[in-house]
Amino acid sequence: AGMIHPNMATMLAFLTTDAAVDRDFLQTALKRAADVSFNMVTVDGDTSTNDTLMLLANGLAANPAIDSGSPLAEAFQKALEQVCIYLAKSIARDGEGATRLIEVVVKGASSEADARIAARTVAGSSLVKSAVHGCDPNWGRIAAAAGRSGCAMVEERTDVYIADMCLLKSGRPLPFDKKAASALLKCDEVSLRVELNLGAFSAVAWGCDLSEEYVVINAEYTT
Amino acid sequence: AGMIHPNMATMLAFLTTDAAVDRDFLQTALKRAADVSFNMVTVDGDTSTNDTLMLLANGLAANPAIDSGSPLAEAFQKALEQVCIYLAKSIARDGEGATRLIEVVVKGASSEADARIAARTVAGSSLVKSAVHGCDPNWGRIAAAAGRSGCAMVEERTDVYIADMCLLKSGRPLPFDKKAASALLKCDEVSLRVELNLGAFSAVAWGCDLSEEYVVINAEYTT
Repeated sequence: AGMIHPNMATMLAFLTTDAAVDRDFLQTALKRAADVSFNMVTVDGDTSTNDTLMLLANGLAANPAIDSGSPLAEAFQKALEQVCIYLAKSIARDGEGATRLIEVVVKGASSEADARIAARTVAGSSLVKSAVHGCDPNWGRIAAAAGRSGCAMVEERTDVYIADMCLLKSGRPLPFDKKAASALLKCDEVSLRVELNLGAFSAVAWGCDLSEEYVVINAEYTT
Repeated sequence: AGMIHPNMATMLAFLTTDAAVDRDFLQTALKRAADVSFNMVTVDGDTSTNDTLMLLANGLAANPAIDSGSPLAEAFQKALEQVCIYLAKSIARDGEGATRLIEVVVKGASSEADARIAARTVAGSSLVKSAVHGCDPNWGRIAAAAGRSGCAMVEERTDVYIADMCLLKSGRPLPFDKKAASALLKCDEVSLRVELNLGAFSAVAWGCDLSEEYVVINAEYTT
């Protein structure tokens, strides 16, 4: 997968369900699901002119149509998000030259927009992606990417984690076991987390490491 | 050079002149010069917390102080821009892993902001940078990067050039000599141009190709 960057980009996704679902609710639910999945995935920062996410509900299950007031509305929404996130992660994992999936969690943001832009910027940073590729626990690059994203950020409140290992606490670097941290970056799924400690909003974005192979693939493109 | 992206980023530039220059004019002139030079250069899309551009005028030349109304104001501005552009290009040329300087010219934009964002986006596109590295005359990537920049763009009016070779005219691909186009991308200085044909504004941005070496350098970072 290449030319993948929010929003969506170079992606044709077709979902189907046997459930009977009210048309307006279906559209709203799909938009919400896209916002936490396909719109939070990046491979290379480049986008494309072709992207589609389509959801067809054929009503075969003959249930009372689900709408926003239905008891099943929340379960439907959650299931839809689960499927979309699974697919979005699969795209990032399959990024050109990628060897690892990167999940970036931002917590404690002042607004949802802040959380989203911070997560997306960290996931899209060439330096973060290169560091993950080299298993370099470079918390500075993670913090710097969040910092330049435009989100509200107070250095003295910011924590940075790799998986559950805290490398930066309240803006101060902690001593840490570099070998253990490096090992966490060798996993198939790498988890990076920035806690801004400013508010109640969070977001998750997905990307992949940047390898020499990405350049080889894209420098030797043949039409 | 790494962590280079508008505006400025990881760059400390110190300029001196013997000219006597009015303080307010000096500040304004420097800001204008930065906007067409250091603020139009990108290496990797990542920025840093350290950047400074400083201009000292010691007055040793004992000329009547140059201000915005002086006959010399324009010449001073031009000379200052020339120096800043020379330095900015040198940074891009020295980008981590870079083998070539890329100059991106955008003409015919509807506004200055449009011209600037389009030029910067093309110069920063990983796919454009990889294509240049592989000497692949991929006009589609250039047009796509301009298109996603957010600038006003009408496909049917858009022209794309490599140096003076037109590959896309009024939104239609032209037949072209692929070997000759590829050779133009092998030059030390590669020139890409997008003509939007919508207005009178233009901008120039500088970047560099993306090589495997960039990943090697940044994946093997040691503190």
